[in-house]
Amino acid sequence: MRFFSDNAAAACPEVLAALHEANRLDTAYDGDAWSQRLNGAFSDLFGTEVEALWVATGTAANSLALAALCPPYGSILCPRDAHIQTDECGAPEFYTLGAKLLLGEGAGAKLVPAEVERQLATVRNDVHQVQPHALSITNATEYGCVYTPDETAALGELAKARGLGFHLDGARFANAVASLGCAPADLSWRAGVDALSFGFTKNGGLGAECLIFFDRELAAATQMRRKRAGHLLSKGRYLAAQLLAMLADDIWLRNARAANGAATRLAEAAGTARLLLPVEANEVFIRVSPDEAAALRGQGFDFYDWGPGEARLVTSWDSDRAHVDALAAAIAKL
Amino acid sequence: MRFFSDNAAAACPEVLAALHEANRLDTAYDGDAWSQRLNGAFSDLFGTEVEALWVATGTAANSLALAALCPPYGSILCPRDAHIQTDECGAPEFYTLGAKLLLGEGAGAKLVPAEVERQLATVRNDVHQVQPHALSITNATEYGCVYTPDETAALGELAKARGLGFHLDGARFANAVASLGCAPADLSWRAGVDALSFGFTKNGGLGAECLIFFDRELAAATQMRRKRAGHLLSKGRYLAAQLLAMLADDIWLRNARAANGAATRLAEAAGTARLLLPVEANEVFIRVSPDEAAALRGQGFDFYDWGPGEARLVTSWDSDRAHVDALAAAIAKL
Amino acid sequence: MRFFSDNAAAACPEVLAALHEANRLDTAYDGDAWSQRLNGAFSDLFGTEVEALWVATGTAANSLALAALCPPYGSILCPRDAHIQTDECGAPEFYTLGAKLLLGEGAGAKLVPAEVERQLATVRNDVHQVQPHALSITNATEYGCVYTPDETAALGELAKARGLGFHLDGARFANAVASLGCAPADLSWRAGVDALSFGFTKNGGLGAECLIFFDRELAAATQMRRKRAGHLLSKGRYLAAQLLAMLADDIWLRNARAANGAATRLAEAAGTARLLLPVEANEVFIRVSPDEAAALRGQGFDFYDWGPGEARLVTSWDSDRAHVDALAAAIAKL
Amino acid sequence: MRFFSDNAAAACPEVLAALHEANRLDTAYDGDAWSQRLNGAFSDLFGTEVEALWVATGTAANSLALAALCPPYGSILCPRDAHIQTDECGAPEFYTLGAKLLLGEGAGAKLVPAEVERQLATVRNDVHQVQPHALSITNATEYGCVYTPDETAALGELAKARGLGFHLDGARFANAVASLGCAPADLSWRAGVDALSFGFTKNGGLGAECLIFFDRELAAATQMRRKRAGHLLSKGRYLAAQLLAMLADDIWLRNARAANGAATRLAEAAGTARLLLPVEANEVFIRVSPDEAAALRGQGFDFYDWGPGEARLVTSWDSDRAHVDALAAAIAKL
Repeated sequence: MRFFSDNAAAACPEVLAALHEANRLDTAYDGDAWSQRLNGAFSDLFGTEVEALWVATGTAANSLALAALCPPYGSILCPRDAHIQTDECGAPEFYTLGAKLLLGEGAGAKLVPAEVERQLATVRNDVHQVQPHALSITNATEYGCVYTPDETAALGELAKARGLGFHLDGARFANAVASLGCAPADLSWRAGVDALSFGFTKNGGLGAECLIFFDRELAAATQMRRKRAGHLLSKGRYLAAQLLAMLADDIWLRNARAANGAATRLAEAAGTARLLLPVEANEVFIRVSPDEAAALRGQGFDFYDWGPGEARLVTSWDSDRAHVDALAAAIAKL
Repeated sequence: MRFFSDNAAAACPEVLAALHEANRLDTAYDGDAWSQRLNGAFSDLFGTEVEALWVATGTAANSLALAALCPPYGSILCPRDAHIQTDECGAPEFYTLGAKLLLGEGAGAKLVPAEVERQLATVRNDVHQVQPHALSITNATEYGCVYTPDETAALGELAKARGLGFHLDGARFANAVASLGCAPADLSWRAGVDALSFGFTKNGGLGAECLIFFDRELAAATQMRRKRAGHLLSKGRYLAAQLLAMLADDIWLRNARAANGAATRLAEAAGTARLLLPVEANEVFIRVSPDEAAALRGQGFDFYDWGPGEARLVTSWDSDRAHVDALAAAIAKL
Repeated sequence: MRFFSDNAAAACPEVLAALHEANRLDTAYDGDAWSQRLNGAFSDLFGTEVEALWVATGTAANSLALAALCPPYGSILCPRDAHIQTDECGAPEFYTLGAKLLLGEGAGAKLVPAEVERQLATVRNDVHQVQPHALSITNATEYGCVYTPDETAALGELAKARGLGFHLDGARFANAVASLGCAPADLSWRAGVDALSFGFTKNGGLGAECLIFFDRELAAATQMRRKRAGHLLSKGRYLAAQLLAMLADDIWLRNARAANGAATRLAEAAGTARLLLPVEANEVFIRVSPDEAAALRGQGFDFYDWGPGEARLVTSWDSDRAHVDALAAAIAKL
Repeated sequence: MRFFSDNAAAACPEVLAALHEANRLDTAYDGDAWSQRLNGAFSDLFGTEVEALWVATGTAANSLALAALCPPYGSILCPRDAHIQTDECGAPEFYTLGAKLLLGEGAGAKLVPAEVERQLATVRNDVHQVQPHALSITNATEYGCVYTPDETAALGELAKARGLGFHLDGARFANAVASLGCAPADLSWRAGVDALSFGFTKNGGLGAECLIFFDRELAAATQMRRKRAGHLLSKGRYLAAQLLAMLADDIWLRNARAANGAATRLAEAAGTARLLLPVEANEVFIRVSPDEAAALRGQGFDFYDWGPGEARLVTSWDSDRAHVDALAAAIAKL
């Protein structure tokens, strides 16, 4: 009974079916029928014209977005716990060819405007210091918290006022949308987001993410960068097909709701006192003593230790109902 | 009836079956059971201990290999028609962070030792010129020609004598091995190759290549670079599973033989006079007048014009027998 | 009696005097009185508003200019014998962070529009190939030839029509202007040049070059890149002072005329048959047999062998009249 | 009466005299007689064989050293207030081609071993995080504090134990040596330093620094990088001559002692209560109210505000005795 990561989940049946359907001779790279439908499908979803590029990983999506928004001699402001800072082995630095990350503080890996202002104020505006060019946040965050549309828009306004591009790492964007019940547009372009890494892999894909440019002028150079980074897969239709399959019938929302629901169930079992943070998506951070953690593991539950006396539980679209119930019960009994 | 590219082919049934089999919860990235078997499986195939890293594209495999073999201030000697020079949008320059490609001449995109010597002699050994650090060839070449084990070994010896790392772009390595009927080892480490981009995607994969390090010390830094480039897929087991499925029962050879056979059939129909180059793998370059090309297209055959009066026909593992026969007949009739 | 390189010459007295004058406490970096006068002084010289940045080397000037004109995923078209290709150890690749150089052919290291067209036509306009973003020529060339204003303007028009930035490596710009007797503007912005590396070091400076942006919008990012490359010297006034001293009273032209005159004297002594190329600046390439070369060296003349049976003689602002006369006589006697 | 920065000071007479002496035809780049003497002169000074490369700026020296010690996918641990982090516009990121800086805390911009350990412990040893490859400290620090030989050696031992290269930014190395009265070796190779940026410009040079490799194997690649970065000046003898002139008769120590002495005089006048940090080199950080700062400026003293209620006073080799006395008196009277 593994609650390590949604990264480890299987692909959902609709995705596998789509791979079968796409499994015939077609044009290579992104000239195929599936890839050609992406801009339209995502423009429909967001209610505005977008450029949509498939890539194989969230790290690639994030880094390509950041390279589009920040020159090599610039910096990107992000939370200290952002995936781009802590878990991508310097991919932003590689893709931007040497930009810096400027790290802001915030509970639940969330930035608020005042913190953005505070960090920007640390930078002297002269040639001796790297100047900020972009703001990057994650929604849902690495700690399972969500930014509301208003919170996002407040950051978007600030970014615009300060001349910063605005990137949203949406590895769990679906979970945020499902959690808030809002329109995808409300958490993205309507809130000032220029580029979104829209995650599908954790949410039931086999291996496909979509980089969405609301600022469509950024797409042309990114297509060069994608190729140059080895991310223009020669049989790209298998990626496009996954994305389209998950957009159809709102599978992406169905899957995210399932994952969120399982996390909510665990959160309720844990109770407020044990929770480190509110559970707003599909991650649950709880306080557990070493003995308690061992007890849970003794019952067959696997998860990451997070810090001393802390554990992370992640649910996914296919979290087994019985396993979730069992874990909820086990936590409640601690 | 499309003879554009083996890139456009479908995935073979064994690969799809393997994806289904891998479609269950497992460890993320490359910690899963399939990924963990790669080193062993490829070591068995090559008869020597290797490090085997899956990646999603040949461009990624090539570039990671080159970055392992050449510093930013070095150069890589390759044929003028090498894929790394002409079709990867500067990926080697991106991954090496600024190395140069030194271009050698050769019919069929093949380098011979004398040409390597000639190119090396153009470089003054001082700090004003970028110094060569690596040699890269493609087998089968971009023109469907193969290097024999002896030809490869002659280059390998020269590379070693001159202190150059030796990279083999094997996007169609399977086709070369199938064509020559030799051991994979004979075209790689026994011939001095340090790193091989072993292609599976064109040969029936859905999207998976294997970067093989015979110089195993190169692997550790490459694992960092792979992650940093966004090429450590979170559900990497789907890539590993494809590779393992194609190694099993020599599917990779079966597929390559089928593609090569179809090309041979077209070559025989074309006749020597019409062939630009000997057909040794799965690509056929023929002389056709504009009228002849139009006539073929009129009969439903699609292919690339290559140069004035030249056409490229590419077969694949699943080239339809009837289509091949029809094209062979049509060419014979020209 | 050394005719190796104008790089090896001394600094002219006016430059040394300027260093003394600048040798007092002032503001660091480029905030000092001398640096602040550069834009004005060069705007006056060129008859248009320019941004003028001092740097310590021609390689830095060239590379900063190219980085301003070409993205990492682009290419720069230049002559095969361009200094940026053959003698800067990959500096353009470093500063652009991975762009490619596209090499054109031309006698005397000169490009003509037809060759530019021919090279551009080799590039497919798709994401698989690096696309050209800039054109770079050298005037006077590495072979001592000059582009006239008309020749430059023809390239400038073509560059503009094809969307290419236009860089002029003017390590010996002074020699070209002196040779042609034209206005500096005629060889630069009036001919479509966006950025000029204006050389002073070879022409009597101690160590100072000026990067001139006619497209002034390129300067701001370049100031960041200059700092980031370690080229914003803390006591920059010593560089600015050199440049201003050489602009005053047209010292730069006086020095270039002296160097050109010495070369002309050698060219006349050599005679047309012995010259590999017309002598239009301060470099003389002559045919000499090994015995003849040895004979010259036996008389105390030092110079570079260029190719088999070829020698390069370079004169400078301070070429000793007696040495030049002696070499002219020795050549005439061969 | 300016106390802004030692960067703004004039060059000392011995340096100017050396430029005159070097002002004759010689070999270009670093083939001249002066440059050829550098290795020997610095090996004598340090009592061990070193490789010594001149460069024009401290930023270039630092960045070349860091690029030699840290791969693009690594990180460099340094104090949060290190010049390489705060004042070089991302030069380390540019030269290393994408490494990260890992920032440690410490009063006076000094790191202690426990803090190094603490920072290293924040890094998981897996491919998802950039791994530390180098440690960089500054002596004297950006806050005018010095590391003793023992303090340096403790860091050197730790660096070695953890597999980190050890870089010393010695923009004010002379001030540290003068302050401590120790041997240059005690603050460098004997304490485990691999590469030292030995500053001369702030200490009376016109524009020359020396990059010293105690690990001499790092020099060869760095010579390529130096050229590639545009830092191989064509008339390098003027840099080498400055360095040699300042080594002769210990001018570098004489100058540093003068600067330190002036700072000490100011520190004594300020008194302990007003000092933010002990004054151990040539920088004085004092507490001053806005009114006090205005009063000092009203008397003609210029300096940087550092933080709210803080001022930085920097002395230099040529600080005017009368100005220093006047400032000391003015501070004492506050």
